[in-house]
Amino acid sequence: MIAVLAGGVGAARFLVGLVGVVEPGEITAIVNTADDTVLHGLHVSPDLDTVTYTLAGAVNPATGWGLVGESFAAMDALDRYGAPTWFRLGDRDLGTHLYRTGRLAAGAHLSDVVAEVAAAWGLGLRLLPMSDDRVRTRLELVEGGEVAFQEYFVHLRHSVPVRRVRFEGAESARPAPGVLEALAEAETIVVAPSNPIVSIGPILAVPGIAEMLESRRERVVAISPIVGGTALKGPAGRLLVELGGESSVVGVARHLQARIGTLVIDEADRGLAPEVEALGMRCLVTATVMGTPEVAADLARAVLAASPLR
Amino acid sequence: MIAVLAGGVGAARFLVGLVGVVEPGEITAIVNTADDTVLHGLHVSPDLDTVTYTLAGAVNPATGWGLVGESFAAMDALDRYGAPTWFRLGDRDLGTHLYRTGRLAAGAHLSDVVAEVAAAWGLGLRLLPMSDDRVRTRLELVEGGEVAFQEYFVHLRHSVPVRRVRFEGAESARPAPGVLEALAEAETIVVAPSNPIVSIGPILAVPGIAEMLESRRERVVAISPIVGGTALKGPAGRLLVELGGESSVVGVARHLQARIGTLVIDEADRGLAPEVEALGMRCLVTATVMGTPEVAADLARAVLAASPLR
Repeated sequence: MIAVLAGGVGAARFLVGLVGVVEPGEITAIVNTADDTVLHGLHVSPDLDTVTYTLAGAVNPATGWGLVGESFAAMDALDRYGAPTWFRLGDRDLGTHLYRTGRLAAGAHLSDVVAEVAAAWGLGLRLLPMSDDRVRTRLELVEGGEVAFQEYFVHLRHSVPVRRVRFEGAESARPAPGVLEALAEAETIVVAPSNPIVSIGPILAVPGIAEMLESRRERVVAISPIVGGTALKGPAGRLLVELGGESSVVGVARHLQARIGTLVIDEADRGLAPEVEALGMRCLVTATVMGTPEVAADLARAVLAASPLR
Repeated sequence: MIAVLAGGVGAARFLVGLVGVVEPGEITAIVNTADDTVLHGLHVSPDLDTVTYTLAGAVNPATGWGLVGESFAAMDALDRYGAPTWFRLGDRDLGTHLYRTGRLAAGAHLSDVVAEVAAAWGLGLRLLPMSDDRVRTRLELVEGGEVAFQEYFVHLRHSVPVRRVRFEGAESARPAPGVLEALAEAETIVVAPSNPIVSIGPILAVPGIAEMLESRRERVVAISPIVGGTALKGPAGRLLVELGGESSVVGVARHLQARIGTLVIDEADRGLAPEVEALGMRCLVTATVMGTPEVAADLARAVLAASPLR
């Protein structure tokens, strides 16, 4: 069994590689839900949907999220009313949010809905939200004020300096049913190449999950989302710096130090392998930029091979 | 000033005629909201939207409700999840529901949202919901059980016998701001040709509104939605019968007897005028089937002329 801590686009691409080299039924992906937001009354789960749509082969390849061939008639109509539409929800994508919102209103747990949506798209792996409880990433800006994650990520285009990140509700959140069991039983626990602060961070903030990784640290393999000193996508690099670390594989290694036994870094960062190893973990150097599913599959094979206890 | 008690399609067509013959700024339409429903977490207001879209010239002419040239990508996507989609929400129409739901969630009153939506569509008349409070039409079926209005109207296609109709929440509902004032100041109060039981009934069930009509009965002119013994659209005829009345202009007159001073009936029902008058009201005979805006305008002129105190 393999458990994967997952954010959005990077994690989704890795999972596509992984289902190509391992029986999907052996995989449990534990997905960040601290980016979830309520827009116009609808519960939106960006990371869960990115993972689902990508694994279903239905994702928009140009963006890495949203559905391919999407239309935006509802958002265009909403513009008439002057409502904020900077978070563009596609018409077909709305079907998912309508379903999720209706089910949650009827009393279903998020993990129930995630399983139903995954089944509807024919996914073979098990998808779990990190928690059924409400956890929300909040970012305190250097210029003052605190914003919700999507406000920062989409509206402000993650281009403003951040002073502090917190995960509202995390202290009292419980891991979703099956999360701790999947981590306890996994031969390998993979930390996907997702933002270590705002994608992996919230998962680790749910009580019990970080502790489980620490106790099974030798089996935990992380893939660095930082390549050649910058994030392939999103604000991982600048957030690492703004919060007092550095934008490099060494910065990632330091951030995850207590929880991982192996860090996988890209060929571009080979020179930094000794520094990573000096932090008390193994360092595997391979191609990590998943431009194609083949690269993703090779990366998945390398990650599994890197797990010393498998 | 003119106040109009309004349901959906019939009322909307009458209002199109009315704005053609009276300064729109002189008109207040008080619209039924007991058909409102929450679908997939979204607050849907069918009668308000039908009136709005019709007056804006954007309604689907084939159905009399919904938007013309609409697409249904979100509903088609929702089908994947096996969610009930018998209430088909168009993509552009969803924009309205998303806006309404978001505003209500942010603490706005329904009457605020109605005014905003009406302004966005450039409507010149004043649109008011009958109440900002939650009132819901519930129908007890002869075969047993009680269903919500849309379940009866859309899902069951109003083809099952009804034993009783009630308006849940009406006792404690307050008329929306401006409703009683508009009725008190109106030279003419028009009861639009809407279903007297499930469209006009809920408006009259909001405490204060029926009393206001009774005290100004001489100024109240109703247009019969029953023509030649049947409703032009919907279940008005069979509901009148099932609830112990009759499907005729006389049945309508009896149902509204205490609240109206004049009933407008179609030429087809001319022979029944004496029976209507015998119930203690005036009876005006004219063309009431609004196949074109011109007929609607002529009807509006006739209604205003019928008001004895204008």
